[in-house]
Amino acid sequence: MHLRNSLLILITLVSVSARAEFKALPDKAPEPAENPSTPAKLELGKMLFFEPRLSMDGTVSCNSCHNVMFHGGDGRPVGVGIHGQRGGRGSPTVWNSAFQTVQFWDGRAKTLEDQAKGPLINGVEMGMTSHDFVIERLNKIPGYISAFKTAFPKDKNPVNIDNMARAIAVYERTLITPNAPFDKYMKGNKKALTPQQIKGMKLVDEIGCTSCHTGVNFSGEEKMGEGNYKPFPQVPGSKFDKMYDLTSDLGRFEVTKNPEDKNQWRVPTWRNIAITAPYFHNGKVKTLDEAVRVMAKTQLDADLTDTQVEDIVAFLNSLTGEFPVQKMPRLPNTANMTVTPEP
Amino acid sequence: MHLRNSLLILITLVSVSARAEFKALPDKAPEPAENPSTPAKLELGKMLFFEPRLSMDGTVSCNSCHNVMFHGGDGRPVGVGIHGQRGGRGSPTVWNSAFQTVQFWDGRAKTLEDQAKGPLINGVEMGMTSHDFVIERLNKIPGYISAFKTAFPKDKNPVNIDNMARAIAVYERTLITPNAPFDKYMKGNKKALTPQQIKGMKLVDEIGCTSCHTGVNFSGEEKMGEGNYKPFPQVPGSKFDKMYDLTSDLGRFEVTKNPEDKNQWRVPTWRNIAITAPYFHNGKVKTLDEAVRVMAKTQLDADLTDTQVEDIVAFLNSLTGEFPVQKMPRLPNTANMTVTPEP
Repeated sequence: MHLRNSLLILITLVSVSARAEFKALPDKAPEPAENPSTPAKLELGKMLFFEPRLSMDGTVSCNSCHNVMFHGGDGRPVGVGIHGQRGGRGSPTVWNSAFQTVQFWDGRAKTLEDQAKGPLINGVEMGMTSHDFVIERLNKIPGYISAFKTAFPKDKNPVNIDNMARAIAVYERTLITPNAPFDKYMKGNKKALTPQQIKGMKLVDEIGCTSCHTGVNFSGEEKMGEGNYKPFPQVPGSKFDKMYDLTSDLGRFEVTKNPEDKNQWRVPTWRNIAITAPYFHNGKVKTLDEAVRVMAKTQLDADLTDTQVEDIVAFLNSLTGEFPVQKMPRLPNTANMTVTPEP
Repeated sequence: MHLRNSLLILITLVSVSARAEFKALPDKAPEPAENPSTPAKLELGKMLFFEPRLSMDGTVSCNSCHNVMFHGGDGRPVGVGIHGQRGGRGSPTVWNSAFQTVQFWDGRAKTLEDQAKGPLINGVEMGMTSHDFVIERLNKIPGYISAFKTAFPKDKNPVNIDNMARAIAVYERTLITPNAPFDKYMKGNKKALTPQQIKGMKLVDEIGCTSCHTGVNFSGEEKMGEGNYKPFPQVPGSKFDKMYDLTSDLGRFEVTKNPEDKNQWRVPTWRNIAITAPYFHNGKVKTLDEAVRVMAKTQLDADLTDTQVEDIVAFLNSLTGEFPVQKMPRLPNTANMTVTPEP
């Protein structure tokens, strides 16, 4: 199937620059051998994902910024943590995050498991004082103690931070949006895309967008776990650098302190990109058409015509998938007292 | 059934002060003739209830403070709105709120419909500048325009603030927690309560708690729509007034400016009280046993023994009902842009 489609695209494009192997989104995400999915982990992970008591004052859950009822983000330029604190970067969508090469904008977590531990103890996000404190609080909630025991039956002390992260990651691996028009097209329904969307699909390949945005998630499938990093801007000096403050956040350099990593970023997904405005790490670009213009200029030094932008936007709109209906979790209660008292 | 139970209780108690007519929670909430429930209103109302874009910066939904996946509140002393602002009072549980006599701690809304409009334009809650602005924003989201049309098919301009409130109220009327041990007991299962819980049930009637906490919701059923207001503290001067700052918030007086309303409050529900700590309008009392001691002293001038407190707490624990499983709503997207941009 992939081969046939690739050939078809290559033949159709008649373009020397064509290099994309377009692929439909799988129904299941890859999972690490050390953390196989189970229904009990999934149910616990969903509870924890929606649990505001994982934040210091009980106001912020994972879902606050990565809203699964919405498009998996918050629709805001940057995330908002406890005490109304603004973070420095936008909240990437959690939908299909299992297909990202690495986690966070700067790739500072290789896995969903590693990612889940970060925001808890970030002062401007959930603001817990330590992972030990997270576990201390969870241990005050009888429903979590039993849910951890059920999810990790072989563990002597199942309520620990690694199991918490494992459960959340198992839940996140179920957050997949299949059956986008693009996926239907790739699976053989040639009417699933409009002629304009097909034009846009060819165009992103011809002009070179797909040299970075590859694979099932358009984020570099072949580099999963390794990280698909690219400079942004790749061609510095355009008017957009200043207009949208594209260079002051040094991206991956902030993690590695390696000068070569300055302004390097994980290539983000195109999945559901049409509905996850605003755009880029700092959320400064408000609309998708402008984001397309910025990327063409800063990465490929290309000035697109309005028609080209419209065609690409049309194609990107074909990547909006179906969001499966989920049951709400029930967050376990504490009798007689609360675990988030304030002085 | 009610009569038989009442007689049974009266006979069992052999107490002159016995006056309660204990009642099980109905499966359905009463609804106003002008806003009958429909599946389309319910679905829209659930979307709106979970919609953070109803707040200025897109961070606070109704569910942020009235968390239906939890016990319908936030487990905090006072609510937290946009920019981390603290409100002055605790967030009452939304579960069974349809059975409250009036809405808000001070009864400033007679109906759920009226209530739903308040927090939207409260600066320390959702912070929208006006109801017109709320509607302007909803009109930018195509999925809401169609959902309002479906829910209010006869209206020429269905997207308006009253319809928004109607839909939310219809959803809230479904938030009922039936089958608490107490309800099972009232329906004939005499083993549903422990001997200690039965002792506690008799005690709250004997000492007079049920002179205010009456009806299916223990909040004054017969005064639904009218308001069951009581002074708190009723017997001022105890050590608790200062210890828990019980008098500085003047309650209903803040609404009416009528001196007779000073420190008058809507009688709150006992339903799920064991799991909705902290307690009282300012959330200053952290545990249920202390809340029982405070109420006995401030309202009835009674100093309870530890055993009496334990028996009452046991009874109150029998009022924790079953929280029905719900499907998550899907919040409609906007293509190409977001409706909550920040400068």
